[in-house]
Parts: sequence; structure tokens; C-alpha cells
Amino acid sequence: MSTSTIHDLIARLKKLSFEDMYNNDFLLTWQKSKDELNAVLTVAEILRHMRSANISPRVFDSGLAVSLFRDNSTRTRFSYASAANLLGLAVQDLDEGKSQIAHGETVRETAVMISFLSEIIGIRDDMYLGAGHEYMVEVGEALTDAHNEGLLERRPSIVNLQCDRDHPTQSMADLQHLINEFGGVKKLKGKKIAMTWAYSPSYGKPLSVPQGIIGLFTRFGMDVHLAYPEGYGLIPEIEEEAAKSAAKSGGSFTKGNSMDEAFKDADIVYPKSWAPFAVMQQRTELLSNRDTKGLGELEKECLEENKKHLDWECTEDKMKLTKGGDARYMHCLPADISGVSCTQGEVAASVFERKRAATYREAGYKPYIIAAMMMLGKVQKPHKLLERMLKQEGPRCHGKG
Amino acid sequence: MSTSTIHDLIARLKKLSFEDMYNNDFLLTWQKSKDELNAVLTVAEILRHMRSANISPRVFDSGLAVSLFRDNSTRTRFSYASAANLLGLAVQDLDEGKSQIAHGETVRETAVMISFLSEIIGIRDDMYLGAGHEYMVEVGEALTDAHNEGLLERRPSIVNLQCDRDHPTQSMADLQHLINEFGGVKKLKGKKIAMTWAYSPSYGKPLSVPQGIIGLFTRFGMDVHLAYPEGYGLIPEIEEEAAKSAAKSGGSFTKGNSMDEAFKDADIVYPKSWAPFAVMQQRTELLSNRDTKGLGELEKECLEENKKHLDWECTEDKMKLTKGGDARYMHCLPADISGVSCTQGEVAASVFERKRAATYREAGYKPYIIAAMMMLGKVQKPHKLLERMLKQEGPRCHGKG
Amino acid sequence: MSTSTIHDLIARLKKLSFEDMYNNDFLLTWQKSKDELNAVLTVAEILRHMRSANISPRVFDSGLAVSLFRDNSTRTRFSYASAANLLGLAVQDLDEGKSQIAHGETVRETAVMISFLSEIIGIRDDMYLGAGHEYMVEVGEALTDAHNEGLLERRPSIVNLQCDRDHPTQSMADLQHLINEFGGVKKLKGKKIAMTWAYSPSYGKPLSVPQGIIGLFTRFGMDVHLAYPEGYGLIPEIEEEAAKSAAKSGGSFTKGNSMDEAFKDADIVYPKSWAPFAVMQQRTELLSNRDTKGLGELEKECLEENKKHLDWECTEDKMKLTKGGDARYMHCLPADISGVSCTQGEVAASVFERKRAATYREAGYKPYIIAAMMMLGKVQKPHKLLERMLKQEGPRCHGKG
Repeated sequence: MSTSTIHDLIARLKKLSFEDMYNNDFLLTWQKSKDELNAVLTVAEILRHMRSANISPRVFDSGLAVSLFRDNSTRTRFSYASAANLLGLAVQDLDEGKSQIAHGETVRETAVMISFLSEIIGIRDDMYLGAGHEYMVEVGEALTDAHNEGLLERRPSIVNLQCDRDHPTQSMADLQHLINEFGGVKKLKGKKIAMTWAYSPSYGKPLSVPQGIIGLFTRFGMDVHLAYPEGYGLIPEIEEEAAKSAAKSGGSFTKGNSMDEAFKDADIVYPKSWAPFAVMQQRTELLSNRDTKGLGELEKECLEENKKHLDWECTEDKMKLTKGGDARYMHCLPADISGVSCTQGEVAASVFERKRAATYREAGYKPYIIAAMMMLGKVQKPHKLLERMLKQEGPRCHGKG
Repeated sequence: MSTSTIHDLIARLKKLSFEDMYNNDFLLTWQKSKDELNAVLTVAEILRHMRSANISPRVFDSGLAVSLFRDNSTRTRFSYASAANLLGLAVQDLDEGKSQIAHGETVRETAVMISFLSEIIGIRDDMYLGAGHEYMVEVGEALTDAHNEGLLERRPSIVNLQCDRDHPTQSMADLQHLINEFGGVKKLKGKKIAMTWAYSPSYGKPLSVPQGIIGLFTRFGMDVHLAYPEGYGLIPEIEEEAAKSAAKSGGSFTKGNSMDEAFKDADIVYPKSWAPFAVMQQRTELLSNRDTKGLGELEKECLEENKKHLDWECTEDKMKLTKGGDARYMHCLPADISGVSCTQGEVAASVFERKRAATYREAGYKPYIIAAMMMLGKVQKPHKLLERMLKQEGPRCHGKG
Repeated sequence: MSTSTIHDLIARLKKLSFEDMYNNDFLLTWQKSKDELNAVLTVAEILRHMRSANISPRVFDSGLAVSLFRDNSTRTRFSYASAANLLGLAVQDLDEGKSQIAHGETVRETAVMISFLSEIIGIRDDMYLGAGHEYMVEVGEALTDAHNEGLLERRPSIVNLQCDRDHPTQSMADLQHLINEFGGVKKLKGKKIAMTWAYSPSYGKPLSVPQGIIGLFTRFGMDVHLAYPEGYGLIPEIEEEAAKSAAKSGGSFTKGNSMDEAFKDADIVYPKSWAPFAVMQQRTELLSNRDTKGLGELEKECLEENKKHLDWECTEDKMKLTKGGDARYMHCLPADISGVSCTQGEVAASVFERKRAATYREAGYKPYIIAAMMMLGKVQKPHKLLERMLKQEGPRCHGKG
């Protein structure tokens, strides 16, 4: 990979307006301007090319990147750790065994105590509908207050590693993948993506991925078709947000209850299981009340309901409905693959096997997207820094050549 | 922050005598000379100012800082990780699930096995009265032996992150806070601090904080007034140590059983719950025997006893007794705040809210205190190194400017 | 330690042929050529001397070293973390709570997801006979495929941190120890080592250490005498491998059922408990079936069987049988020491106490062996890099002098 590509990308970055990202958080893509989203995508590509060229993009000689996961995650955890490490930050996990859902003084205090020498706080909190995003906002306010009161010399920036509303590091990585697959962000205009529910023998999967996709892809003039069985709706406000964005960007946002219709002539399909919004609300209440019995009954009920929609599977026949009979397939992984990871699931084995490499490639963008969000949150003039790095050509691995 | 302040601090450091700290441990403040304590305070301030000036105080290109926590801790864990990272060390946790209380060969072996490429071993062991400090001493002896036998090229230094006797990283951070609040260590002379017990709906809180405070603050000519309900005494030897230090430093050490008397005209109040010494002894025995039933009974008994002292709360009325009606308030956090984190606790919500920012600021000194202990344990001539760093001005964050 | 020693070692390294190690894995010593083994030993010594000379051997400005432990381990975990840190890599643990024994798509996917910005994957998987090594091979194949498909820019190298067959970081550290004790690898020729079973009040200890020892030491012309009570055999293929290697190297491989015969005139003794091969096979099956009752019965049975061999203890009397009445004693630690860590175990307290320092020294080589495996896996021309580092003399600790 030549450094001229990197210079072109830096030139592109210079033209974008993203001043507000400095010392700020990245919580929801729909709170960010198009320029800000493009800045993330551009910096991510620069970092990726720099690594290929063995140029170290180390921003920090020291500093912590706090990781606060309220849910298990291998993929995002590794992506976060990779991103932090690439920029020179050490990951410090916050043991949340004790903390659970916290509010008020507890949140404020913890937020400050973990931040004295920290640059970034990555938070994953997707278990409780109506709680994850609110928690991140509360932490952010505590950080701003503490910074204003002179208690924190620097205000760490929060990176949303998945909340109840959005999963921006996932959706942005997905977007980057498509941009590179189609040869540029402008090529996405008019492309049809089918974001559809799919059957899975599990229940309670978060809504943040489909919400993230419809919330982001409608910004780029795509034809976003959201399909799910009746009753499996997403948070209504986010569906509305998507509709508005589509209108503004010259794309479209369509909702329906047929997988076939969604797949018809689609350039891209993204079949993925999730729990209905209403169920997630019930679940949140039961979890809050620690109603184990209620939770068990809800799970049983939902699994029964799910089974009525076994035909929502991304089979070879369904794929034939798509553009050219073989659309691009996306998934945030791991997928429930029929006959492989479960008896029957989201996708047929033959389809997944054919698309496997592409889904891995898709996932590979996430570390760079996170690193870009970190850099834009903590470096005021990233193009200057990147140019300096490029000039110095400090190697990431000294053992080459 | 200007670098001239840093030069002044380095000049001050040069005049102090602290040769014995090199390759040594920091276990108890009362084992350290005044010069040694001042060296820690001075280096901590230098590091804090260097970070503000964006100068990296990285001592190590590689090396481990082992963290061995036998009790949960978010605050100290983050402070330790921040300090290690600031100096260039990677934190490696020792999984103590298996180890429990160990003696003899096991301690000796583990101590060496974790030390081959380690610079610092941070230990928190405050659960068992009479065990924590002894354990650290035993680890230290094993390290010295192994170093003398040529098995360890370098002898890691131990930093006490809280034992049954002292909590030096806390008390030293508290001291640093007061020095900066009052405008110099000499200003502390004659200032009255009320270190008092306070009611909490929990039981079994360690004695190390009040012990650490009376053991350290009496060294600096302060009037230390220790107050607790009858029966809530600290380790007698440490109370005696404090009395001796006060006599030597020209301060005073008073004990009493009245919160009001302690608060009267106090410049600083430090109301905090702890378990009586005698109870901690009983508890240690029961824990050693894994006597769950006995532990449950002891807890019940103690909580009943605690409830007789609900009036030991830092209320607005109590604060009115202090110097100027509003003394400085200290706490190691988290505080039990009445009506916030519990129904009734150590401090009234209105008092805490007014003092909140100050307690956060107090906590913010801990990472630098720990880093200073690390540096003094591992760098023979820190003033030379610091001067070199100051000259080179290697940035901590390359993204500034 | 002078740098001339290091230059000599680099000169030796230059003469060795180890091209195939680059971007490859280190799984079993018997898959490696003599030159490759010597390259590991030589680089390990270089790194050890460089650290003594305070020269930083940092290869990476950033990058992850994944640690995937399917069994507890303090010693190897710290050695791995030390090695990674020495070369500039950050350790990222893979939480294996969820993963258990995985195959096919799951392995392939996880392998790629943890590898996007990773340089090394250290795996410990010694619980299931017939599974550990196979798992590592499967991960390696997934990495190669992903690299070939362009999904991974770099292919991380796997380091076997103990599998069901071999424990190469242990056996290579043991070998390095002996080389330094005897004054050169050539001095090992003709030396007799007694690798013997020893009694322990536990059961189910892995076979990888004795297998690793007989598989490696027979390569260097040593007289390897393996002894165990009837029924306590190792994996037959590996015993055969050892016999073949001995024939080739001009050493010998003897099997027997008498500890006395093994100890007779031995230069080195390595008495260590393990479970019989047949028992490990049964155990693997029971574990796979989660047959708790069966496992309990097997354990009881085995402990009874073990008790028939209480005399397999490395006592003072047994030591008298060895060369000069006091052979070198080796152990991978922790040893079951009679009267210290158990009532009766592998070794008498007086023997262990006399040999304690040596066993600690033995363990001290492991971090460097692992770092050497990492470096040879990721640096194509290590002698060039090492020469450059030596010239630059970048300090590991800036605080010296």
C-alpha cells in the first residue's frame, strides 16, 4: 500500500468540519453530522493504510482506555483493545461485578475515579432498554462537570461500544466495508439493503444492530428496507429517525413484514435475529425486579413465538430473489448457521460458507473505526498529527526489512 | 502550568535524603523518615505538573507492575494502573483465587515466579488483622533473598496498596491534598484534624485509613484528634506510635469518645466508619476457621452495636462546631451518604454535596503518589532522570498543538 | 554482562537455518529442526543478556499478544506476559468461559476475530487428551486461510503454552538451564537424566512435561531414562519419537519401572507426578460427557492406585544413588514437597530446600524462551534487528545511571 493513498485521505480529511468531536463523545450516529461521520471513516482508512505501511500511528506515550462492559463480548472487546493499543493506550477493565445499574452520585463518583489519567472510556451497556444510552449520557455529564470544576485535567471521551439504541462501532465498520466493496461512498446511493429479522433458537438479542443500520445507512442515500414479522418492531423513534434521514439524503426507508419483499432486488442483505421491542421492555422490567420466574416464562413464550417464523431464514432460495441472484451478505457475527451452530437459524450453511470471508473482512474494520473515534475525540487537529507521523515513518514493527 | 514550578520542585528534591528507598519497599509511613515522605510528596507533584505540561515521565520501555489484590477495589486499582502506565509499566494481575493466605515456601515461590521481569509489586491485603502487613514483609524477604542468590536480576519494590495496619497511598494522597489546600506543608503545623468514627449500615470496614491518618498526620505537627464510641479502638500500638510522633513533631494527639469535641474548632474533619479492633480480631479468627455461622452472628451483633451510635454522623449541625463553621471535609470514598447511598450513614447529603468536588480532588492525588513511590523504589537518582526528561520534553500526548 | 557476549551469540545465530519459523507456529519441539531449537535458545540468551545490559529489545511499537488459557496457570501466564511486554506487545486475554471445546466454524471465526491486530496467540490447552494439540493446529489453519484470503494483513504466530502432548516453553527453559549449568550444549552429550514419575496426593496432572522432556532432551545426545510404576505410561507415539531421536543424536532412551535404576548415576533427576495415559483417556471421555459421578469415581480409584507407589519420592537416600551422590534436581514447579506442601509428595523437604534456588533459576529462563519464540515467529531477520538494537542501545529503564 503506498503512502500516496494516505496523503489523499489526509487531504480529504482537511476539508471536513468536525471541530465538535474534540473532547466529545461518540454515542449515536444520528447525533453526528455527515462530515463527522466521514471524518471517522477517513481517519479509520488512514490508520488502516498506515498499519499496512508499517507506520506507527501512536498518539500517546501513556494513558488509559477504560473498558466498561456490562455484557459479554469477545469481538468488540478485542477490537477496542486493538484500537487502544494502536494509539498507545493501555486498556483497564472496570470490574462491574459490584456496580450493576447505578445512578446519581454512584455514577458520578465512579466516572471521575476511573478518569484521572484516562483518555477514553468505552462502554457497552445493551441489556436494559432505556438504560444503556442514558447511562452513557450520565457518565458524560459527570465527566464534563468534573472537567469544568478542575477535577479532571483532561476530559476522557466516551465511545459507545453498544447501547440499547445504537451500535455505532458496528454500523460504521459495516458502512466502511460497503464503501470499500462498492468502490466509494457515492456508489452506495440508490443501493438497496434489506435489513431483516431472521429466526434464531435464542431470544433477547439486542435491537442495537438493526437500529444502528437503519439509522446510519439512510444517511447515505441508500434504499433501506426493514422487514420483520409482525410484532418484532424496533424502538419507534429510531424507525422515525431513519425515515427522516432517508428523506433528507435522497434515499428511502421502507418497512414491511415480508422477508421476500425485502430481499427482492436487494444489493445487500443483513438477516439477523432480534427480540421485539415490546418484549425487551417487558424483559427490562423483569430484570429490574429480578423476577427470575417471570423471565423464564417470557423466554419460553418468546421462543414459542419465534418458532412461528422459522421461514425467516437466509436460504439459497431467498438469495435468488436478490440482485443478480447473489447479493452481498452482512452479519455482525457470530451468525446462527443452520446445521452448523444450531439446528435451524438465521442463515443456511451453504450461503454462509460462500459469504464467510466477506463477513470476516467486514469485522476487520471495527478496530480502525474505534481507533478513529478515539483519535477524533482526543486530537484537535488530526490531519496535522497524521502528516507528522507520515513524515517521521516511525515503524510499528521494527523487525521488518 | 509552567516548567519553572517543576524545576523548583526538583531543586527541593535534591536536598532530601532518601537513598534507602532505592530497591526498597513502601509498607508503612511510620517506617519512613520525614525526608523520605517529603521525597514522595515532591516527586508526586513533579509528575503531576509534568503531565499537565504534556511531558511524558516514562521511566521504562518495558517491565511489569504486578497487582496482587486480596480484596476488591476500583479506586486503588485504577490509581495503581494509572501510575504504572504513566511510568511505562504494564499491569499484570495475579489471580489470587487459588492462593488465599499463604505462608512459607508457597509465598517464597510465588514471589519469585511473578518477579523475573517485574519492577513493582502492588499488594492489597487488608482482610485479616495481623496478616496483611506480615504477608508483605514475607514477600519482601523472599525478593531480597532471591536477588542476593542471583535468581532475580532486579529486586522488584513492593508498594502497600492497603494492609491491616496502614493505607499509605491513601494517607499520602490525603496529605498532598491538604498541603495544596493550605498552601504548603508548613501551614499544616497546628491545624486541627478530627479523625472520627462515623455510623454506617455496614460492618467490617478496615482500620487502615484512620490508622494511616493518625500515623502520618502526627508527623507534620498537626493536632490530631481521634474520636470513636467506646469500644471502637484501633490497633493500640499504632495509637501509641501516633502519640510519639506528635510529641516529636510539635503537634498533638488526643483521643476521645465524643464526635462533638473532636469537631470543635477543627480545621479538617475526616468522619469515617470502621470496625472495632477487637471485632476485627474475632473476625480474623472466624474467617481463618471458615466459621460462616460465627461470622453471621458477629455481623448481626456488630450491626446492632453500630446502631447505638447513629448520632455519629457528619451533619450540618456538627459542621457548625468546626473552625469557621465549615471545616474542610475529607473521605477516602465512597462515603455512605444519608439518603443517597443509604438511609442513614456517615455524612448528611447536604454536607457531602457541598464538599463533593473537594473529595474528588483529594482522590486525584493517589495515582501520582503511587507513581512517586514506584519511581523512588526503582530509580536511584530521580532528580537526574527528571531533569533529563524535562530537557527532552518528550510529549505524553503527541496530538497536542 | 558485556555486550561482546551478545555479539558472539548473534554471530552464532547467523549461522543457523531457521527461515521456516517466520510467520509460523511453535507447537511441538519434535517438529522443529536442531537449528530451529538452537535459534530459540540463542535468541533467548541474547534477550536475557540485553536486559541485563539494560538494552531494550522492543520489537513492536504496538500489537497484541493474545492469551488463551483453558487451564489455570500463574507461572506460564506471568512468563508469557513478561515476554510479550519485553517485545512491546500488550497482552489481551480471551475470556474462555463461553468457548469450551470448540470446533469448525466457531474455532475459525474466533481465531480470526482475535487476530486483526495481533502478533502472537499463546494457547494453553492441556485438559483433554487428544484435544489440545489438535485445537492449536485448527487455529493455525484458520489463521493461514484467513491470511491467504487477505482477511488478515499479518498472520499471528501461535506459541504452545502447554498442550496434551508437549510443553515446549517449559522443556526449552529446562534445556537452557542445563546448558548454562553444564557450560554449553555440547556438554549435555552423554549426561544421564532420570525423568521419573513421583508420588503426589493429587491426580490428573498432565503428561506434557515428561513428554516434553523425553521428546526434547533425546535430541541433544543425552541418556534419557524414563521411569514410572507399571501402568503410568505416556502417549506411546511420543515415547517412540524419543527413542528415534535418541538413536539419531547418539544418545539413548531407556524405559523402566524402577526409580532406583533411573536415579543410579544420573547427572540430573526430574521426579514429577503425572496421571497414567489410560486414565487421562478415560478422564477426557468423562469430561466430555460431563459425567461428574464417573469423574469422582475415577479420581478415588486413581488416588488409591497412586498410594501403592508412595515410595516414588525423591528422598535423600534416592539422591545418594545419583552421580556423586547429589545430582542436579529439576522441577517445573510447584513441587509437592513432603511435610511442606503436603504430608507426603514428590520430594523430601531437605532435598528440595537444597535445590530450591536452582529450580527458581530454571524457571527464570521461561520468559526469555517465550520471547525468543515470539521474535522468531514475527521477525524475518532477527540478527539484523538485534544488531541494530545493540548499536542504538535504547535503555529499557531510563532511570539507570
